[in-house]
Amino acid sequence: MSHSQPTRILGIDPGSRVTGFGVIDVHGREHHYVASGCIKTPTGASLSERIAVIVRHIDEIIRHYQPHQAAIEQVFVNVNPAATLMLGQARGAAIAALVMHDLPVFEYTALQVKQAVVGKGKAAKEQVQHMVVQMLALSGTPQADAADGLAVALTHALRNHGLASQLNPDGLQVKRGRFQW
Amino acid sequence: MSHSQPTRILGIDPGSRVTGFGVIDVHGREHHYVASGCIKTPTGASLSERIAVIVRHIDEIIRHYQPHQAAIEQVFVNVNPAATLMLGQARGAAIAALVMHDLPVFEYTALQVKQAVVGKGKAAKEQVQHMVVQMLALSGTPQADAADGLAVALTHALRNHGLASQLNPDGLQVKRGRFQW
Repeated sequence: MSHSQPTRILGIDPGSRVTGFGVIDVHGREHHYVASGCIKTPTGASLSERIAVIVRHIDEIIRHYQPHQAAIEQVFVNVNPAATLMLGQARGAAIAALVMHDLPVFEYTALQVKQAVVGKGKAAKEQVQHMVVQMLALSGTPQADAADGLAVALTHALRNHGLASQLNPDGLQVKRGRFQW
Repeated sequence: MSHSQPTRILGIDPGSRVTGFGVIDVHGREHHYVASGCIKTPTGASLSERIAVIVRHIDEIIRHYQPHQAAIEQVFVNVNPAATLMLGQARGAAIAALVMHDLPVFEYTALQVKQAVVGKGKAAKEQVQHMVVQMLALSGTPQADAADGLAVALTHALRNHGLASQLNPDGLQVKRGRFQW
């Protein structure tokens, strides 16, 4: 499965305070780092101001890096209903920014990300960070949330390229039949 | 407080399956019905498809009716964490669609809506519907979710026009100092 054009994937790790993102290029079985970072919402700001920060930053990232597909982590943090609602709002806003650009959005659970990137579902956060550095041959370690953004982008690449089958027997699943490369 | 130009308010009642909306014009102490309806997300669709439906419809409503301000209900439904997350995602997507148009967004709890529209916080849903019909002199009763969208738009109008002080002693609060008429 080789391409003349690389596929650019935007990975998003949504959070109520920090949303991590990572952009990678996938060319056959090769993955190249493009960009990563964190979108931090201002503390003390109103909900709509926080959502505006998330939406505008993701909008800028998409305009600047022109990804072909997006992958987003499915997060469940059940600290309390208010925290869950807040996380949901941040995640909904992130997906809204993605679909507004007609980007196909693929969802992966934290378990799927760890299985794809580390090879086991019970991996620690540091192992995910470590594998992201290795797989993308980074010279430094990205911030935890940025690494999670890169990890979910890598998960999408691995699960749809056959490489995942070496790491995860459930790999190669086409989610919702919308996958088209 | 009279104006040469009416202020147009878009009210949103977010939900994971149905998002209600209502558009009213406020001219001094007069309120006029403009439009209302329900955005229904397709059952069985993926999360990103459901969010796309919400975002695109709200986007269309804003382009068509050109509201000046938006009011959205603060909903807490703690059935279970997954339902809370889903509601949060729908609400976050709705707010994302509003802030993308630089609309000032005001939030009101269900209690505030009932207090403003019915005059007491413990009002039944039917009372809210009834008062919406009365206050906007509607010839028919709108669907429950559309009525809730109109009710939150009316709440914003009432709480910022002095009329609310007759119904609710806590009225006339300026939320977050962003209110500017």
